[in-house]
Formats: sequence, C-alpha cells, structure tokens
Amino acid sequence: MKMKAIVMTGAGRPWEVHEVPVPAVEPGQVLVRVHASGMCYTDVWATQGYGGDIYPQTPGHEVVGEVVEVGAGVRSRRVGDRVGTTWVQSACGRCPYCRQNRPLSGQTAMNCVEPRTTGFAAQGGHAEYIAIAAEGTVLLPDGLAYADAAPMMCAGYTTWSGLRDAQPQPRERIAVLGIGGLGHVALQLSRACGYDTVAITHSADKHDLARQLGADHVVADGRQLREIGGADVLLVTSNDFALAQEAVAGLRVDGRIVLCGLDFSRPFSISSEGVPFHMMRQRVIGSTHGGQRYLSEVLELAAQGKVKPIVETFALDQAAEAYERLASGRMRFRGVFTPSRGG
Amino acid sequence: MKMKAIVMTGAGRPWEVHEVPVPAVEPGQVLVRVHASGMCYTDVWATQGYGGDIYPQTPGHEVVGEVVEVGAGVRSRRVGDRVGTTWVQSACGRCPYCRQNRPLSGQTAMNCVEPRTTGFAAQGGHAEYIAIAAEGTVLLPDGLAYADAAPMMCAGYTTWSGLRDAQPQPRERIAVLGIGGLGHVALQLSRACGYDTVAITHSADKHDLARQLGADHVVADGRQLREIGGADVLLVTSNDFALAQEAVAGLRVDGRIVLCGLDFSRPFSISSEGVPFHMMRQRVIGSTHGGQRYLSEVLELAAQGKVKPIVETFALDQAAEAYERLASGRMRFRGVFTPSRGG
Amino acid sequence: MKMKAIVMTGAGRPWEVHEVPVPAVEPGQVLVRVHASGMCYTDVWATQGYGGDIYPQTPGHEVVGEVVEVGAGVRSRRVGDRVGTTWVQSACGRCPYCRQNRPLSGQTAMNCVEPRTTGFAAQGGHAEYIAIAAEGTVLLPDGLAYADAAPMMCAGYTTWSGLRDAQPQPRERIAVLGIGGLGHVALQLSRACGYDTVAITHSADKHDLARQLGADHVVADGRQLREIGGADVLLVTSNDFALAQEAVAGLRVDGRIVLCGLDFSRPFSISSEGVPFHMMRQRVIGSTHGGQRYLSEVLELAAQGKVKPIVETFALDQAAEAYERLASGRMRFRGVFTPSRGG
Amino acid sequence: MKMKAIVMTGAGRPWEVHEVPVPAVEPGQVLVRVHASGMCYTDVWATQGYGGDIYPQTPGHEVVGEVVEVGAGVRSRRVGDRVGTTWVQSACGRCPYCRQNRPLSGQTAMNCVEPRTTGFAAQGGHAEYIAIAAEGTVLLPDGLAYADAAPMMCAGYTTWSGLRDAQPQPRERIAVLGIGGLGHVALQLSRACGYDTVAITHSADKHDLARQLGADHVVADGRQLREIGGADVLLVTSNDFALAQEAVAGLRVDGRIVLCGLDFSRPFSISSEGVPFHMMRQRVIGSTHGGQRYLSEVLELAAQGKVKPIVETFALDQAAEAYERLASGRMRFRGVFTPSRGG
Repeated sequence: MKMKAIVMTGAGRPWEVHEVPVPAVEPGQVLVRVHASGMCYTDVWATQGYGGDIYPQTPGHEVVGEVVEVGAGVRSRRVGDRVGTTWVQSACGRCPYCRQNRPLSGQTAMNCVEPRTTGFAAQGGHAEYIAIAAEGTVLLPDGLAYADAAPMMCAGYTTWSGLRDAQPQPRERIAVLGIGGLGHVALQLSRACGYDTVAITHSADKHDLARQLGADHVVADGRQLREIGGADVLLVTSNDFALAQEAVAGLRVDGRIVLCGLDFSRPFSISSEGVPFHMMRQRVIGSTHGGQRYLSEVLELAAQGKVKPIVETFALDQAAEAYERLASGRMRFRGVFTPSRGG
Repeated sequence: MKMKAIVMTGAGRPWEVHEVPVPAVEPGQVLVRVHASGMCYTDVWATQGYGGDIYPQTPGHEVVGEVVEVGAGVRSRRVGDRVGTTWVQSACGRCPYCRQNRPLSGQTAMNCVEPRTTGFAAQGGHAEYIAIAAEGTVLLPDGLAYADAAPMMCAGYTTWSGLRDAQPQPRERIAVLGIGGLGHVALQLSRACGYDTVAITHSADKHDLARQLGADHVVADGRQLREIGGADVLLVTSNDFALAQEAVAGLRVDGRIVLCGLDFSRPFSISSEGVPFHMMRQRVIGSTHGGQRYLSEVLELAAQGKVKPIVETFALDQAAEAYERLASGRMRFRGVFTPSRGG
Repeated sequence: MKMKAIVMTGAGRPWEVHEVPVPAVEPGQVLVRVHASGMCYTDVWATQGYGGDIYPQTPGHEVVGEVVEVGAGVRSRRVGDRVGTTWVQSACGRCPYCRQNRPLSGQTAMNCVEPRTTGFAAQGGHAEYIAIAAEGTVLLPDGLAYADAAPMMCAGYTTWSGLRDAQPQPRERIAVLGIGGLGHVALQLSRACGYDTVAITHSADKHDLARQLGADHVVADGRQLREIGGADVLLVTSNDFALAQEAVAGLRVDGRIVLCGLDFSRPFSISSEGVPFHMMRQRVIGSTHGGQRYLSEVLELAAQGKVKPIVETFALDQAAEAYERLASGRMRFRGVFTPSRGG
Repeated sequence: MKMKAIVMTGAGRPWEVHEVPVPAVEPGQVLVRVHASGMCYTDVWATQGYGGDIYPQTPGHEVVGEVVEVGAGVRSRRVGDRVGTTWVQSACGRCPYCRQNRPLSGQTAMNCVEPRTTGFAAQGGHAEYIAIAAEGTVLLPDGLAYADAAPMMCAGYTTWSGLRDAQPQPRERIAVLGIGGLGHVALQLSRACGYDTVAITHSADKHDLARQLGADHVVADGRQLREIGGADVLLVTSNDFALAQEAVAGLRVDGRIVLCGLDFSRPFSISSEGVPFHMMRQRVIGSTHGGQRYLSEVLELAAQGKVKPIVETFALDQAAEAYERLASGRMRFRGVFTPSRGG
C-alpha cells in the first residue's frame, strides 16, 4: 500500500512530496492515520542539516491521528484510538542514562544515546501514515480537534514544561518573550493558570493580539518590564538570546529565566555588572519536554478550551509553500498539515 | 516444560509446592529464571485473604533473575540480562488514572484500575521461572549478588522512597522506627546519605545491631527521642501505629512522619492536645514505591555496598518453614528463596 | 491618658468594657491608634481558658491602625504609618528554637518558649490604642480600608499560609471545607490564583454565596467531591475533624489535606481501610501563619480587590453582643471592632 | 574612649591603622568587643573602589566577639553574649523590597535600597570594637572558637547557602571548583553532609589537601570530571568564570551550576553548541547569603567540628602585610584579625 509523504532529500534541499510504502507495523508499535501534523521551526533546522545526515527522511514531530493497526504485544492501544506523539517516541532502555530509569518519556528518552526520534531517526508525521512506538503515544482527550491537538505535541508541550519548570508560585507574574508559534500558546497557558501575564514584543502590531490571548500587560523590552514592576518568571520562547538578555533587566529578585530554545548565533550571557545575578538570587533554567504527564496536562487544557492555537492548515501537496512560510518566519502562528483531508 | 512453584491455594491455607508448567512468554514480556525471591510481610496478608480472592496464585514480589527468553516486540531486554521486578509490573494505559501519564511505573501502575501485580493478579516470584512485562523490569547493576538484590525490590524500594519523599535537608536527623525487614535497611540508607540517624526500638537486644547498621543514636521511644533533641524525619517502618503515634513526641518543628505501611488494627491519629500538629508545622506523608528511578538508586547503593540486607535463604521446598518464620515475625531480617540453587 | 478597652476578667466570664491607661510605648515599640480589630474564634477559646490564666487581658489579634508614637531605637516605622500586627509580635531571640534563626516572624515566634502574643501574653487589639513591637508590625498597602485589612491579619494570613503550604501546582483543584470566617476568604484566594475551586458545605443556603465568592463547584461532602472528579488539595477551615475526615474520600492521588485549625473533641484519623493513604501518596499538612512574607502577599491581594472579607462592624461598647454572635457561630463572616469611630 | 581600627582612606590607597573613638551604642544596637574579624576578597574590591566612595571606612564583614554594652530597646541580647554579624546588618524596612517582608536578614536586607552594610555603609570589623544592629547579630554556639567562627560569617555562610540553594538530593555528587578561602570550606561542608564530593583544581600541589578536607575525588577540569562520571552540582567558589564554563563539561543531566561570586572580566556564558543546556535540563543558580537560618546551620556544623577553616591570624598592626597576602591570592586560606589579643 502506498501513501503520500513529504521527504527531506538532503541538507538544504527543498521538501518533496513522494509516494512511498505505508510503513509496516512492528511488534510494540501502532500504525496511525495522520489527521494533523504540526510544523515546528526545528523542521527548518533538520532541513538545513543541524540534526545530522538523516536523509532521506520525512519531517514532523507534532503528530496526531487515529490508530488503524496495533502491533503484537501492545495492550494499551486499540484500533480507533485517537493518539499523538512527540519528538521522542522511545529510548533504548539499556544505555547508562536509561539505566537510571528517570521518568519516561521525553525526559529520559531525550538523553538516551539512541532514542527513536520522530522526524529524525524515524519517520516523521508529514505523511498520510506513521508507525509509532506504542509507549511513545498518548491518548487524546475527547472533543479536542486534531488540528488543535497537533501543536500541543511540541509548542504546547515545550511552553507548558517551561512554565512548570519555573515553579511559579501563586500570583507571581510571568513574562513571555516572543509572540510566535510558542509564545502565543505560552500567553494563553499563563493566563489560564491565573498568573499575572506580560507579553514582551517589539512588534507594535501584535499588542492587540497579545491582549486577546491573555496578556494583562504588553511591553516592548526589559526596561519597560522593569517600569511596570518587573516579573518573577521570564519565559523565553524566541530563539534570539540578545533579546532574552536585554529582558533580564526586568527580572525581579528570585526571578527565573527559562530557556526552552536555542540561539546558534550567540551564547546567553550572565554578567557581573550592575546588581549581579547572584545577589538577585536569580536562576537560568534549561527546559525541554518534561515528561508525558506535562503533555497530558496541556492536552487537557486544550480540550477545556483554555488554550487554542492559531493555525494555518496545509495539504501535503502544499509542502513547498508551507516550508517557505515557516522558514521565513511568516507562519501565523502554527502551520499544520492535514493529510487525511486529501490533497 | 515443568517447574517448581509455591502456591497459595486459598485464604488462610498453608503454602504448597507444586509442579506447574513454565509460563509461556507473550509479546512484550521476558521469561526470567528466578535466582532470588524475597519474602515481604505482604505475602502473609495475601495468604490471609487481604488481597482478595486471587487463588490459586504464586506469591512473591521481590524477584530477580536472568532473562532466558525475550518476547516479540521487546527491544530493551536481551537473553542473559540480570533483571528484577517489583510489586507492580505494568498498568493498563487506558484508565482515567493512566491517562494522566504520571511517571511510570510503580507510581502510575499502583493507582491504575487494572495493574499487573506480581504475586497477586499475576504469578509471583517464589518459583523457578516467571514471565514479566519487560517494561516492569529493571536491569541490575553489575556485581550485585542476587540474594542481596531481591530485598531491594520491595524493602529497599519502599524505605528509599520513604526517605526520598521526606525530602530530608542536608544534616537533618532521621529517626527510623522499627528494626525489622524494612527498618534494618532504612538505617543503612540514612547513614549512607550522611544524615544523623536514630534507631527507635523497644528491643534492648537490638541496640548493638542498630549501631552496627549505622545508627548514631538508639532510643526506646518518642520521649527518649525528644530528650536527645528530637528528629526532623520519622520513618515508620513498623506496622504498629500505636508506636508510631507515641514516637511523634520526639518530632521537631517542621518535622515529617512518613507512613509506608499499614496497621489494620487502628488508625494513625493526629490530636489537638499539647502543642498542636499545625502549630508545629508537621506533616504526615503517605509513601509507597515512588517510581523506577528510586529503585535504580537504591540498587546502585546496594551495588556500592552502602546497604546490605541481612538475609536468610530458603529452598522452595522449605516453603512451610519459611512462611512460619515470616508470619510469626521471627525472620532475621529478610527471607529469600533461591530457586536456582535447587531443592 | 485613658482609653476604652475590652477586658477578659477571668475564664468563662463575659467581656467587659473598661477605662484603662493608654499603654506607654517602650523602646523598640510603636503606639498604634486602633482603627479595626477583627474577632477570631480563638478569642472564644482565650475567654474560655484554653490559653491559660492570662487574665485580666484585652483580646484581639487582628489589629490595624495608625502609628501615633514611635519608641526609641525604631527606625523602620514613623508616625502616620498604617500598620497591622498578628497573633505573635516577637520572639525572645535566645531560646533553643530562636537560636535556629528560622525566618521571622510568626513561624519562629510561634515556637519560641516566650513569645509576645497579642491578646494573650500582651494586650490585644480590642481597644482604642495598643503598643506593639515594631518588628511585629507590617506596613499596610495604600488604599486598603482598615476594616478590610484587619481580617487579613489572621483569617487571611492563616488561609493563605495553608494554600501556600499545600504547594498547589498550576491548574490543580482546591477544595475548601467550611464557609465561615476563614473559608469565605479561602475561596476567594483560591479563585484569585486561578485554581479550579470547590466549596464543600452542608449548608444548602450557602451555595449561592459560595459561587459568588468564586467557587467553580459546590458540593456537600467528600462523596460528592469524588463524584465530580476529586480535588488535589483539601483546605480544612472548619474546626470539625469529623467533616474533614469524611471529605478525604474526595482527595485524589498525591492529594494534600491542610489542617490549619483545631478540634478539641476528636483527633484527625488516618485509617488503613479501603485504598490506603500511603498507596494514594497523600499527605496531611499542619499549617499556621507562615511568615510575614505570606502576610504581605495576602494584604496585597486584598489591596488589589482580589479578596474582600465580609465583615460586621461593632463599636467597643457592643462587646457583649459581638461576643455572643462569635461564640454561637452566627457571625457573618468576620466581626470587626472599629474603635476609632467612637462608641 | 579610643580604639585601634584599620581604615581605608580612599580608593586604591593602602590600609592604615588609626586611633579612633569607640563607637557610641544607639538604641537597637549592641557594642561588641571584636575577638576575630575575617578577611574576604570583597575587602580588596572595597579598597579598590568597586563598592563606591565609602571612604574613610573600616573594612571587615566577618565579625565575632563579645557584647559589652546593650542599647535601649534590645531585649534579645545581653552583656557577655558571644555574637557575630555578617555583610548586611539590617534593612530599612520601608522600601518596596522591604515591604515584601521576605525572610530577614541577609536575603531581604541585601536587596533593600538602603541596607546597613558592615564595612561599607557602616563601620566594619577590623577594629577593637564595633556597634552592630542587634537584629543583625546571631548568637554563637558554645565551644566554637572565635577564630574559627569568623570565617563562617561570610566564607561559610556563602558556601553553605550555595550548597543549600542547589537543593542536593541524597547521594548526589557535588563538585567544588576552586580550593581557596571559600572552596576549602565548601569541600568540608559537602563531605560532612554525605555527598560524594569532587574537588576541581588546576593546582597539583593542592590534591593531597583536597583529599584531607574531604574530597572523594580530585580532578583538574570539567573534561576529567566527565571522565569520572560527572557531577550533579557544580559549586563555583572561584572568581574565574572561564574555569567555571569549562567545568560545565562535567555536569550531568539535571545538573546545577551555583554561582556565588563575581568575575568582572567576563560574563558566564551558556552556549547552544553540543548537547544544549536546555536539553540537559541544567540550571544556573545565583546564590548569596540565604538568611540567618543557614548561618545558624553552618555555625552549628563548625561547633560540631564538621567544618574547620584553615586560618592565618594577624594583629591589627599587621594590616599592610595581611592586605598584601589577601590581594595577591597568597592567603592560606582565610586571614583573620584577632584584635582582642593586642597588637
């Protein structure tokens, strides 16, 4: 049986749409008909070669759909289940890291020496079907639309993990830096949990949107943040560490900066100038997908309507156009392929 | 193929040794040749009927051995692996609790509506072979003897979880109540981690042993504990809540009482007399197996020689004698079947 | 100079209004003209003799007012400051507990062997003037009315400490047991912080009020709480441990029961029946005033209008009537003396 | 009455020994006869002008001695008390930071807009007498020698706060970078608390000493640290951020880097190269004196002999020689003035 799939054929080469065999389901796996597959900026890095020589490969690690076949030895999933998976499906279970048995998955898997990574080591979601390790799937809550669920598998999971890792206390103030694919979700999550929420954005045209998404305050930078009294948590959702460093000017005593992304152009720097970092008792927290429990929580928030991603949907055949919007930063705010709708 | 197995044939009936078929290994499972299987007081409760009508069933949930066959779909385990399992091997993955995707296993599994429980819902370890869900196994550290590893799967896992759940701070004082199967392990764990360690025991003949196991101080009860300055953590390893309540007299402000067991004869009571509990800011913590990470940690401590259980070994044929010692409280301190040694 | 003050003249005797000298201000103290002094049920216990033979004494430990005189050595307070104090003004600084230098005050002071307690060891607030240890005062936020501030000094401080001590995680559900002086504040605090909030009350006539105060759900007991999915935190604001124990039926895995009060008629009991406490990984947390930082936080929430106590005001001359309403449980919901208004 | 005092007379000028009046004790203060006053590298920065134009001023913020006079309004201290103070004695109590009422002192005071800082805003300890805010003093444990107590007031307090702020879990491994005034204390503290302890030092001649002080392992840098399995906590006690950044190579997943000092020559940088910080879930923690409770704890450890600073003692008249050793990094390991011994 054949299916349509987007394929990265080499570093720096454009995405192509191929006809390929539907993957065979191995023991321990489920075969999923993809209903929605979100695009993350990491797809661009994978395409540019930052993820190593993984080609040919199908990108996409925000995948949701319906189970159509269940492999041998899988007791926890059934045909018809609505499921999703994330960047890391499973770990080897044998390497020194895995032997520590830290909570699965995401967290363990990510530091395993040989994880099964969706869209990198293994086929990704921008296709009509995908075979997934059953242990790497989560059941979707009832009533959550596939197109709204897909962005939760990375954008939602990442920002919720960041918010959780900051350990915000009741009534603290959370500032979200950047209003893009991640930031527009983070603002909603912060507001939904009752935190006093600040959006930091240089784009004057995003002020109204930021307020609609839940920002109690909108400022342009760290200096303005300080003027309105500062924040306890700075959630960095952009990949620009220069902006992040400037924003620290608005961080309160005991404040926490959460880095959940990368900037390959410069490091994040902590200087001894002014009132030093250590005398402010501040912290920089590295955060990534924090385990399937956090994923379940953010899916539940989405099912309750507390967070709703703004998505642009694409057919697989629109791969080139979709990639161009993503790479140029013009996606508004999350691109999602919907293979089951045809085209 | 046949094997020898201990069988509970009905509530309140004596253990019998039967010849039964070696279990077939299903997809997702491993077949393990049992080298050591520890006896826990819960075996007595299972025999007396507190675990429901599970008969006929083979008891034993502190199981270690060697993988001799690997089922379909299992990638993380291989023939020859030294592994162990615990009370709960796996969860259903579908019930409301499982959908929360809390860290596996133990913690999740235990509150699943239909967990695969070793020695209860599924065959236990007091036998020559056992089929175990691969996800419910952990790899044993090199160099750890089987007979020393088995008691870690419940006695070690339980007390280490209790100590971890108490969140002891550097240089706090930990008092261990009871010096039996659990307590004699808990004392060693506390000392190995540098805490000022107190043994509480009414048995004058256990004082020397308590010191050898690592107690910095030995007292008879809570009143004496208070006289030496009190403790920050009270780890209750006995099943006698009357003793536990008395011991609270020696708990400091901000102190924590960890309950990791049961007393079917009476509740644990918090009274408003004297300086009340809430003004002391004390806490009662319910604790059980806290996830495979804790299990890995305690196994590592055992492999380093930081904790070594005192065991009496038995052949399967000695089932009746072993049960009698366990039920009467005369085991010193952990009984372990060693089926692979024959007999 | 003379002032009017309510005086407890002996155990079980009615409150009297006396003319007494305005207290002299000692070094380290401030003299405060009382604008509002809240009534707490502890006033009843003090009157009944549970606090020892403290007579004659003026009750009241929810005191706010204006500084009219500053003692020698006080640099942090000035004439005209709006301040308040709580149950414990200061500690001895020398006893074994004080030598641990735990964070001041409340927390440290409460376990000091000789604390200066407002309305017990030292004069309380139900009077026209009161001399207070400067270190035991906090500055009130601008714009917060005195009558709304007074109940924050104990009812607000207690419940906020309880909520904080429960360490609620984002989007957890908090159930408040009891809708009285403490409970009606706790409901507002929980809602203001974005938690899914449940009121537990047997009084059908309080359902509408509970919703107005912020309850997302109203139930009658623990059984009903379980039916709507349970709660993560059970904040016990009533002094009836029988109700509290029943409510535990609705507590989720990893749930926390916060006891911030007393029940002299019975203990709080944890039984091993059903799914035991330790297998649910539940906790009982003893909580009391947790330090001036928490007090500042709840005052700030009051100044922002996030919590507003429902108060009945009384002149000092109405002492007898006020006491009767308080002792009989008919105060709706917090009684406050307003001595500066005359009468 | 006159006393001898070391005086900084201007930025970059040598220390001088002057005869000056014994300070008058104000209300709220105690007058202390100085028995020991430790030298911290911050004394050098103060002398070089990094602390602003504070001249003329007596340096020294590790001060211990005997109370010889008690000011009005002080109830917690008596003549004859053995006390000490730290860098910050007290806060204003009125600024926006102080109004948050965070736990006193150190922590609050340090971020107050106008703190009373020992050796900066107020006279320091390198003198025969010093007047100190009573609230800024702690009582010394019995039996702790003054010369051993003085370094605890900053070196001990700083490193213990760093260790505490890292929230080390039982059996984690702590690596201490630098074996100087702070590092040689940190090694002892880590070992005393039962952590697996690594010393990181480029000085081959310090290996033996490091082991004597409690290091279980000694390595030269982060690469070697990684080779022995890495560490969970990296406690940076040196002022060289280049070394600190290199050492991060040996930090484990979930590892924490504690910065408790400054490097004016370069920032501490977090790069996106290799396995990025956020995927390792690592953290950088800014840490400083964490409140008098931590100070009490480290003093108690010193009184128990768990930590003993290596000190060189000096008479006040040896100011020039002492400064030279301190500034040139040749002090071994903490210089302490002992004014009460004469000279």
